[in-house]
Amino acid sequence: MTIIDGGVTSPKGFKAAGIHAGLKKAKKDMAMIISEKEAVTAATFTTNKVKAAPVLWDQGIAKAGKASAVVINSGNANACTGKQGLLDAEKTAEIAASLIGTEKSSVYVCSTGVIGVKLDMAKIGKGIETLYPLLSVNGGKDAAEAICTTDTFSKEAAATVEISGKTVTIGGMAKGSGMIHPNMATMLSFITTDAVISQETLHKLLGATVEDTFNMISVDGDTSTNDTCIVLANGTAGNAEIKEGSDDYEAFKEAFSYVLGTLAKLITRDGEGAGRFIEMKVVNALTKNDAKILARAVISSSLVKAAFFGSDANWGRILCAMGYSGADFDPSMVDLSFSSSKGEIDVVKNGEPIPFSEEKAKEILLEKEIYVLADCHQGAAEATAWGCDLTYDYVKINGDYRS
Amino acid sequence: MTIIDGGVTSPKGFKAAGIHAGLKKAKKDMAMIISEKEAVTAATFTTNKVKAAPVLWDQGIAKAGKASAVVINSGNANACTGKQGLLDAEKTAEIAASLIGTEKSSVYVCSTGVIGVKLDMAKIGKGIETLYPLLSVNGGKDAAEAICTTDTFSKEAAATVEISGKTVTIGGMAKGSGMIHPNMATMLSFITTDAVISQETLHKLLGATVEDTFNMISVDGDTSTNDTCIVLANGTAGNAEIKEGSDDYEAFKEAFSYVLGTLAKLITRDGEGAGRFIEMKVVNALTKNDAKILARAVISSSLVKAAFFGSDANWGRILCAMGYSGADFDPSMVDLSFSSSKGEIDVVKNGEPIPFSEEKAKEILLEKEIYVLADCHQGAAEATAWGCDLTYDYVKINGDYRS
Repeated sequence: MTIIDGGVTSPKGFKAAGIHAGLKKAKKDMAMIISEKEAVTAATFTTNKVKAAPVLWDQGIAKAGKASAVVINSGNANACTGKQGLLDAEKTAEIAASLIGTEKSSVYVCSTGVIGVKLDMAKIGKGIETLYPLLSVNGGKDAAEAICTTDTFSKEAAATVEISGKTVTIGGMAKGSGMIHPNMATMLSFITTDAVISQETLHKLLGATVEDTFNMISVDGDTSTNDTCIVLANGTAGNAEIKEGSDDYEAFKEAFSYVLGTLAKLITRDGEGAGRFIEMKVVNALTKNDAKILARAVISSSLVKAAFFGSDANWGRILCAMGYSGADFDPSMVDLSFSSSKGEIDVVKNGEPIPFSEEKAKEILLEKEIYVLADCHQGAAEATAWGCDLTYDYVKINGDYRS
Repeated sequence: MTIIDGGVTSPKGFKAAGIHAGLKKAKKDMAMIISEKEAVTAATFTTNKVKAAPVLWDQGIAKAGKASAVVINSGNANACTGKQGLLDAEKTAEIAASLIGTEKSSVYVCSTGVIGVKLDMAKIGKGIETLYPLLSVNGGKDAAEAICTTDTFSKEAAATVEISGKTVTIGGMAKGSGMIHPNMATMLSFITTDAVISQETLHKLLGATVEDTFNMISVDGDTSTNDTCIVLANGTAGNAEIKEGSDDYEAFKEAFSYVLGTLAKLITRDGEGAGRFIEMKVVNALTKNDAKILARAVISSSLVKAAFFGSDANWGRILCAMGYSGADFDPSMVDLSFSSSKGEIDVVKNGEPIPFSEEKAKEILLEKEIYVLADCHQGAAEATAWGCDLTYDYVKINGDYRS
């Protein structure tokens, strides 16, 4: 695997563009991705019972397994918009499809922004007409900017891998957990690849990889109404088909995981009001599932997050969060340590605190990237979760009255 | 039922005391409750896998079903203290039992405070010796003060009810969700009654009532290592035994629920940094369990809590939290309204926003007690949960470095 600069237009046969269509005041707010050849596709969606209209539209496309394009708008989530919302999502696909010359059933539609406000379809229609002629192999960056809401930077990642003598490329972009304005929502991510891979294999790979990446991050524990991760694979690289269980599959999986993992971590780094990036690794757990539950519980605890804001070596809250997580583990066997670029410090051995230098701990925890390690000493399974601290700014951003 | 001023010494045959034993710098930090006659007892404990030593001790007593006394200390949770912690809990019971002239197996021990620090048994021993001669029928208030940690006020409630011509009294005290100092933990509550009731009936009643009271509140979603609710019923009122399914049972249950419910709500009113008390009522849900899950998800959402801090009529976050709660409901049938002493305002009808005056909404939400009503229009079940807003002070309190 080779890490490269790039995003959704790095793989061969993909074009993209991003523009200001007027849904937001000044910033870019519409993006489009197109594949020259119809691509096989897989996608995962929010588990929230309140699903935005575009999610319902996209679920049908993901099920059919083929797609040519994605139209994305920021500034309006098209959620809690009833039947009109569904009609608007379909109409968006239809407008794009007629320009591209494909079926509307081949066009994904994604929205992110305010909940409960009808889409301005005049602006959406005009936006698509503006976007279409701008689509280019250099448009990934503009697209990544256009999908942002309260993100403070755009998020892209890309990697290449050699498969059967061909260079296969994977690129992606994502937007994070911005909920600054009242009813903002949504984590959106888009992955493109020129790999030759079947829909079935892509679907399995996506499910497994999302579990270890996007499903292992938390900013505030609120699962939005629009969360979506879409992958398009257009086969332009001309590699021998990637089949599950092969060495090619493992090589592809490594690069695929890198792209999704990098985007997931970028989202937590840009979490609302976040001052610190926290990585929680659980090792030697009984099962992979226990390890995941433990790691996620710690990253999601408001008390743990507030402690990191205060650079407090608060091992008690971490043990406490592990304890109520529901995972199977023996608290009396747990070791805990904190580390950062300033060094490492052990704080708990066999479930009990051990003497440590508070001064050294504070020095470590004042850094912006903190690593927590919990060793369960019971099995061989491990998992890692990523999060951020809970800050005054989080409360400020989310407590601001709508204006 | 008659609501009365009072606490754990309101029922006949109970004495209590509260003193400063030196575990905390200046404030009262040890309390004791004693029943003249050995009482039947029931108790519920934290579901956290990391259980403090006194919880493990108390589980044995609750199982046996008889108790004469409770010794409580604040300032130190005796959690994550290993084998020594268990020995210390047992020793505490032993010291109290020898003074009282009972078995150590008849004495509950509860601790709340810092995690991971061994109990100072010299101070605990001296504390019990000081407490014992001070035990009095007027000692409830001192005891309620002594169990506090970061609580800003002590919490008591009491009620009487006529049963078979006798006045039966129920009293209680609780301490709340203070986690200001690094590893603080714990919700503790103690209920006394002079009712004649079997251990089996008391156990059932407690379980059902805790479900609708203490289990329906949330300050920050972190279940502590020490959470405990203990009930002692000493039979001194001389009523005909209260049997399940009888009118007497229903009358007793009403008063019992009042005492536990009042204490639970006092805890949320005193939540860390809380500026507002939030009541979330869900009606016409499919099942009681769905109603509870929905109400609790809303009360626990950081985004919803931050919105209330900002007096923001953020119906979108409420629908979103209901959506990810896991409960069975149809989002497109939900109506939502907000109310306070300043009036009421409907904000959502059939899952979609309806036009409302932002000015009026803000006027309502600027109050200190906010009521949210969600009508699911699907069944006949309802549930209510109580919580508080998420404030700068919560982050400040919990982010403060240990000192």
